[in-house]
Amino acid sequence: MESIINHLQSVRDESPIVHNITNYVVMNNTANALLAIGASPIMAHAHPELRDLVKISGASVINIGTLDEYWVESMILAAKAANEFGKPWILDPVGAGASAYRNETITKLLEHSPTIIRGNASEIMSMAKVNATTKGVDSTNTSDEALEAGIALSKKTGAVVCISGEKDYVILEDRVTAIENGHQLMGRITGMGCTATALIGAFAAVVKDPFQATVSAMCVLGIAGEMAAEKAKGPGSMQLRIYDNLYQISDTDITNLAKLSSLSDNDL
Amino acid sequence: MESIINHLQSVRDESPIVHNITNYVVMNNTANALLAIGASPIMAHAHPELRDLVKISGASVINIGTLDEYWVESMILAAKAANEFGKPWILDPVGAGASAYRNETITKLLEHSPTIIRGNASEIMSMAKVNATTKGVDSTNTSDEALEAGIALSKKTGAVVCISGEKDYVILEDRVTAIENGHQLMGRITGMGCTATALIGAFAAVVKDPFQATVSAMCVLGIAGEMAAEKAKGPGSMQLRIYDNLYQISDTDITNLAKLSSLSDNDL
Amino acid sequence: MESIINHLQSVRDESPIVHNITNYVVMNNTANALLAIGASPIMAHAHPELRDLVKISGASVINIGTLDEYWVESMILAAKAANEFGKPWILDPVGAGASAYRNETITKLLEHSPTIIRGNASEIMSMAKVNATTKGVDSTNTSDEALEAGIALSKKTGAVVCISGEKDYVILEDRVTAIENGHQLMGRITGMGCTATALIGAFAAVVKDPFQATVSAMCVLGIAGEMAAEKAKGPGSMQLRIYDNLYQISDTDITNLAKLSSLSDNDL
Repeated sequence: MESIINHLQSVRDESPIVHNITNYVVMNNTANALLAIGASPIMAHAHPELRDLVKISGASVINIGTLDEYWVESMILAAKAANEFGKPWILDPVGAGASAYRNETITKLLEHSPTIIRGNASEIMSMAKVNATTKGVDSTNTSDEALEAGIALSKKTGAVVCISGEKDYVILEDRVTAIENGHQLMGRITGMGCTATALIGAFAAVVKDPFQATVSAMCVLGIAGEMAAEKAKGPGSMQLRIYDNLYQISDTDITNLAKLSSLSDNDL
Repeated sequence: MESIINHLQSVRDESPIVHNITNYVVMNNTANALLAIGASPIMAHAHPELRDLVKISGASVINIGTLDEYWVESMILAAKAANEFGKPWILDPVGAGASAYRNETITKLLEHSPTIIRGNASEIMSMAKVNATTKGVDSTNTSDEALEAGIALSKKTGAVVCISGEKDYVILEDRVTAIENGHQLMGRITGMGCTATALIGAFAAVVKDPFQATVSAMCVLGIAGEMAAEKAKGPGSMQLRIYDNLYQISDTDITNLAKLSSLSDNDL
Repeated sequence: MESIINHLQSVRDESPIVHNITNYVVMNNTANALLAIGASPIMAHAHPELRDLVKISGASVINIGTLDEYWVESMILAAKAANEFGKPWILDPVGAGASAYRNETITKLLEHSPTIIRGNASEIMSMAKVNATTKGVDSTNTSDEALEAGIALSKKTGAVVCISGEKDYVILEDRVTAIENGHQLMGRITGMGCTATALIGAFAAVVKDPFQATVSAMCVLGIAGEMAAEKAKGPGSMQLRIYDNLYQISDTDITNLAKLSSLSDNDL
């Protein structure tokens, strides 16, 4: 827990600039979540300025939710610039598998070595299938299948892979941490996954180890959601309280509520 | 009332995918409203993927609020795909009459036979004027004039036409149902009309009769708004409570609060 | 205080149409703030319709937050149309100084004589540096330096310049009014500056003197924020309450809470 507390303190102390190329639906949410946690969001996609902005940022978040031809080019430019300047970049493959165009875009982006990839189980399974080696779709246990896909995707890309869901998994090759924070009502608010990715960006900007940064971000958001659910009457009040809690979350909250576990090889 | 209760249950049970090409202002609102009611929103506009996404959706919602040349093309592609795959599509003619460009775009979209059209009185009157036969603007009773325009527009296009306002009308040629739910404070929240259109999409995806789907969607949103207004202190808390209520609304709420009436020929 | 009360009453009575070309992140916020205060927002950027829409609006707000090539052209078209039709237009130079592209865009927009410019201290300082005459960055007092930059920018452009921050300044050449309303938590909500600019648009649409319009808008938003902070538990509940308060704010609230002062030459 201590590392999560330290990481959150670093975000609040350093207030890292997080550059986002994200979808129209969630820009407001993710900017608000970044501000609430103490980071400084920039949302920008214009080709002529991406290099300038990636350079001054601590991390770039690339989310393909409402992609089109111009924005795909923006994403590639940003990913290249992040590599050029040695900045972490985080890929959110929204809707992977839903269209051929999304799959092609993801394939292009993977060529530029994302530091971290965060998606839900179906997105990660789709990416592993599209781009590599899975055992097909006849696994009876979705959760196991997703985890296997995540491990395969991490091995193939070298990226930290985060699968979010009822239980979140953070994966780097054979290293897996499970996080059991969060609340089902978070699934009724648009952009909670995208918000997770944005927060990973904030933590990755100040924490050297992208695996630990991802674990901390997912755990903090999950706890903020659990705390919010205590009094929420539905997704409207839930969303509001998540921002309030990202702002207020204390070391004690983290100590009391974080639920992490490392999965040994036997669990896999 | 029973049909509304059944329709809402179908949305919650089937969780239909609703594809949206909508405006930047309300994407977050309408995604949240769709999630709250139990549907699964997709927001996407890229030309290369529209056919794929319309195909997997139960309905498409096309809202021209922040249109431009690329997006108009997206809208036409989506409307064509909806017809190709036999999916209902719903047109929200935001700002009809405010610019020549909006009117031209609406004319193009009407060529692709929307299943349902929802607008406010001035938008529907503008559409009826632009595209057909009205008696001019010298009617002394705006409400009557709007209703006449709605009937004319429905007859001309074959679409169900919904005029939202203090009283909502759902029209299919000479069949008219009036809904007296809702609250004036809803007019102080951006995108309440767009939210109505999105919810119509959710109901149209699971209810075969687009007339009944529209009545149910408008009634449910109106009731959610009325319930929200009881404790709201302004448009901020009103918006939040509408999401909470869309999530929580019960059969009893519908039974107690729905205010529907069919207008006979004599009323018209 | 009386003029602020009168100006707010004019916004509520006249419900001016405010045209916005603004960034994706805040469109929802600024539309909601405009509706809450009593204005009628239009968000539109399509080249073919800008002249039509600026013509029917009382003011245009141009915010460069998520600019790209198409949108920059939209901004220029709107600024030209505003001048053609004698409408005030308000520039929000988001991120001035963060990229060469932003600076170039601002230079182009300044050629079309904005009526009012609102930015934070670093944006205004960057604009004054980029486009004119400052004394460099070695001032020890940022606030003084910003104020000097604002005065220089106003003199160079002829625009009213508003610098928002802990204390807001409204500047027309050597005339300066300081406003000490607001709350630090407003900085943790995305788009509060953009919301300020949008509200300035609403006031400028109904108040002839752009200096007074700006003072009134900044003061009303600051008071709404102060009132919101009394019960807010974080940025989520803060944002919600600001909308509620913009809707509810009374003459008495303004009389009791407005903190204005004119700076004489000796203060500068």
